[in-house]
Amino acid sequence: MMLPGWVRDYRREWLVGDLTAAAVVTMLLVPQGLAYATLAGLPAYLGLYASILPVIAYAMFGSSMVLAVGPVAVTALMTASALSPLATPGSPEYVAGAVVLALLSGAMLFAFGLLRLGQLARLLSHPVISGFISGAALLILIGQLRPLLGIAIDGDTAIALLWNLGRNLGQLQPLTAAIGGSALLVLLLARRRLPKLLNRLGMAEAGAVLVSRLVPMLVVLLAAGGIALAGMAERLSVVGELPTGLPRLVLPELSWQLVGALWLPALVISLVTFIESVAVAQAFARQQGSRIDPDAELRGLGAANVASAVSGAFPVTGGFSRTVVNAEAGARSPLAGVLAALLMVVVLLFATGLFRALPNTVLAAVIMAAVLNLVDIKGLLHAWRFDPLEGIAFAGTALGVLLAGVEMGVIFGVAFSLALLVWRASHPHLAVVGRVPGSEHFRNVLRHPEVERDPQQVIVRVDENLFFGNAEEIEARLTAIADEHVEARHLVLVMSSVSHVDATAADMLEYLNATLAKRGIRLHLAEVKGPVMDRLEAGTLLGHLSGEVFLSTHEAVVSLSSAGR
Amino acid sequence: MMLPGWVRDYRREWLVGDLTAAAVVTMLLVPQGLAYATLAGLPAYLGLYASILPVIAYAMFGSSMVLAVGPVAVTALMTASALSPLATPGSPEYVAGAVVLALLSGAMLFAFGLLRLGQLARLLSHPVISGFISGAALLILIGQLRPLLGIAIDGDTAIALLWNLGRNLGQLQPLTAAIGGSALLVLLLARRRLPKLLNRLGMAEAGAVLVSRLVPMLVVLLAAGGIALAGMAERLSVVGELPTGLPRLVLPELSWQLVGALWLPALVISLVTFIESVAVAQAFARQQGSRIDPDAELRGLGAANVASAVSGAFPVTGGFSRTVVNAEAGARSPLAGVLAALLMVVVLLFATGLFRALPNTVLAAVIMAAVLNLVDIKGLLHAWRFDPLEGIAFAGTALGVLLAGVEMGVIFGVAFSLALLVWRASHPHLAVVGRVPGSEHFRNVLRHPEVERDPQQVIVRVDENLFFGNAEEIEARLTAIADEHVEARHLVLVMSSVSHVDATAADMLEYLNATLAKRGIRLHLAEVKGPVMDRLEAGTLLGHLSGEVFLSTHEAVVSLSSAGR
Repeated sequence: MMLPGWVRDYRREWLVGDLTAAAVVTMLLVPQGLAYATLAGLPAYLGLYASILPVIAYAMFGSSMVLAVGPVAVTALMTASALSPLATPGSPEYVAGAVVLALLSGAMLFAFGLLRLGQLARLLSHPVISGFISGAALLILIGQLRPLLGIAIDGDTAIALLWNLGRNLGQLQPLTAAIGGSALLVLLLARRRLPKLLNRLGMAEAGAVLVSRLVPMLVVLLAAGGIALAGMAERLSVVGELPTGLPRLVLPELSWQLVGALWLPALVISLVTFIESVAVAQAFARQQGSRIDPDAELRGLGAANVASAVSGAFPVTGGFSRTVVNAEAGARSPLAGVLAALLMVVVLLFATGLFRALPNTVLAAVIMAAVLNLVDIKGLLHAWRFDPLEGIAFAGTALGVLLAGVEMGVIFGVAFSLALLVWRASHPHLAVVGRVPGSEHFRNVLRHPEVERDPQQVIVRVDENLFFGNAEEIEARLTAIADEHVEARHLVLVMSSVSHVDATAADMLEYLNATLAKRGIRLHLAEVKGPVMDRLEAGTLLGHLSGEVFLSTHEAVVSLSSAGR
Repeated sequence: MMLPGWVRDYRREWLVGDLTAAAVVTMLLVPQGLAYATLAGLPAYLGLYASILPVIAYAMFGSSMVLAVGPVAVTALMTASALSPLATPGSPEYVAGAVVLALLSGAMLFAFGLLRLGQLARLLSHPVISGFISGAALLILIGQLRPLLGIAIDGDTAIALLWNLGRNLGQLQPLTAAIGGSALLVLLLARRRLPKLLNRLGMAEAGAVLVSRLVPMLVVLLAAGGIALAGMAERLSVVGELPTGLPRLVLPELSWQLVGALWLPALVISLVTFIESVAVAQAFARQQGSRIDPDAELRGLGAANVASAVSGAFPVTGGFSRTVVNAEAGARSPLAGVLAALLMVVVLLFATGLFRALPNTVLAAVIMAAVLNLVDIKGLLHAWRFDPLEGIAFAGTALGVLLAGVEMGVIFGVAFSLALLVWRASHPHLAVVGRVPGSEHFRNVLRHPEVERDPQQVIVRVDENLFFGNAEEIEARLTAIADEHVEARHLVLVMSSVSHVDATAADMLEYLNATLAKRGIRLHLAEVKGPVMDRLEAGTLLGHLSGEVFLSTHEAVVSLSSAGR
């Protein structure tokens, strides 16, 4: 196998940064791994298993220098939503299903990478992606109220969860809620206030931020230790005994029935995995002035998920918060990830006993503190201010996730984006233009009433590609414009904004040409771009055109004024 | 009820044309109605029932002056494909299903008309529509080989039909095949050669064409009479006794189970019904310099299908061949259709006995001769020459219909059109431009090497709207262009072709602005259109822009040359 580029180009001075980052990321990965595995409905230790081989596999195949791969909140939620109709959370069948899900989405991602389908990520716009992540984060927040408060209820959608929660609030376990609530408070305060506080106490800003990142690990260790010492483990729902030692590697068993039930969720998870990772990796690559290769990302994430399946674990992806921590702590290469994986091995070999008495309510607090940041109200306002339709795309996707689940949310987002695209292109802007006096420039007569016009010449600029979606409307509007200008003998179509004409639109131009000819109006084209001209020359329009094709609008006006009467 | 416009504006001089057209269309409608009903798997007389009330209902609500509504080959095929999984063709359950299908698609069409969804037709491009109709025609041709040759086999797709036909060719009934083959030959010769022959014999061209349209009726009457006189009706599969008298009007019975099974086929049939009718109606409206109203068409077709359901018949639409005949025979208003419906009443009251001994093989010949014209090889070549991708859309839709059935064919066509649209917009054309010496015009430096350029200024024209599908690629290519120009200090983006910028692309421009600023390159915009400027002013880009916004490219060059160094 070829060594990845970063191994060949590795510089010794990167080592300190990579080591520091590995240590800090591991401190964050342990509590998050445990938490996200429980969010996925799986035994907590599988979150640690999903943080070793997948990280190494990504380092071999991926292209980002700092992306931290592992269990992530949104894909954990999607795993739970795909598997809960098939088996009881935590049961052996459920765990087997998670493995198949990781294997399928890993194989799909890798195959997409080999097929160079990295551009698939373009199907989603920023507002749709942010809306999806915000909706998923809200759904997670609402769902985690159950373990946080110790109330056992069912529900897949936000409404069902809130409704059942409200009806069963009496079941609240005071001790559980008190411990979880305190942990959540500490975590939120640590994230929002601690860096500034430490900074004011004289610590360098970068150091203060890093120390605040260790708080989740501290909270987890203190909670587990405190509960164990106080002998309260029996009165709470706790993580329990974790198996000591490394994951046993397995070849996942594939039943056709499971594959049939899981291929669609696996596909949606692949899409989300990829889009989330690429968005994160790209943001960091931009900061460092480098680029990522979407197809290499697909292969890297595919390999990571296959590795997770082989470890007996569940779908993984590149997460935002851990990547931020990795970069802030000084990671310079994927070696940071490899070292973090080795540290996780040490944890699994020697330290699993520490987490036995860890209450699930504290894990819920870890999850909630982490995903609160993903609810992007600012992004919603930003999109809305830019264009209310983009705000609707954002809010609609988020609502879709909340009301109909994560998979329907993604599908709604893609469908809405495409529909918006067609709808916009279907209502093109047409402008009747006239000449700015004394120049060769032409401007919209409605915005610039001072322009010069010849009553026999109607000059219309079409501000959109001509295609099946708008051909009919453009024909109708051009005919109406010709009707309004009773003296018109020439209609000049200014094609400076037209980069593509499809066969349907070319047919339309032929009809228009014939219709106008019957009324004694000649149709001319001006400023036709090279690729459009090539296309029209291959068709039959130019052979039938009643008028001429002019290089510039000015040329058309001059030529038609002198010769046309 | 308000009278339709054509009744109020009716002129007496239209009456002769309308009467002639009614007579000729009825002569065509009888054999086609019988044939298409059998194609739909229904008793033949239902094709006549579907040619009375639906025609009158369309005349009340539709907008085309010449569209001939009634049973049509493609929708008959779709009816058969929707119903054959549910019941045995010809059984009472099957007939009841056809009625529900007509009612559902009629209600949908009428509702779409009230909701003004006429623009839905834009989802399909011309090559996709032609590909769909060609594929359906081929499927019909292959399917009609069964009754033509007297071989009874099963099969839904072209491959299954041909395969089973090949294996069972031994079952061929010589008498059936001989009669059907002769009828087909006569019909094809009459269509291709008869008008010219009559013309050469001294008949006026228009008259010769009209006479040739009566040949199917003649063939049908001669075949039925001949078989009856020769006493061969027992040795052939014949139409049999037709009920004399008018259709009994019924309120269709709706079971939820049937509605659940048929709503999706009904929706697809509605879409095809509408698109086929509008395409035909529009072509004729263009010839006469008038327009049709897509929403009125939806209401007219909806009313026609509801009327067909009330008559106990099956889905109808506006057909191409009968509309051609109607227009050629001199129809000036929908009164022609109303008169044809009255003539059909006469046929049903007095003439059904004529068709008792009509062999089904002759009906197969009528269908095959009629749909052969719909296989549009010329259209395929036309689309291919214009743009190979449009040829692929055409052929792919036709193949989809042949290999996966009519419904999948439509769905494939829509999906392919939309995918092509996104794909095209995702690969925008960018051009580095320079000034044509001594002018204010700027041209692509690759096509016009003589243009003037300042090495500190890179001027790039973007020939596409900026949106989520191409934002990333445009950013990568602009960065690469900036990299190639080592002396560059200004990058001017010429936005003359950009009619829309979405939030994702605005984010991209901000990233690009920041990336370029780090390399000491300022980003400027020129020729920004009004609506785009409004949008950008609502966002945050303009506040961060390192450069300026210029009205024209020329202004940018002059201003940056004098001040920029």
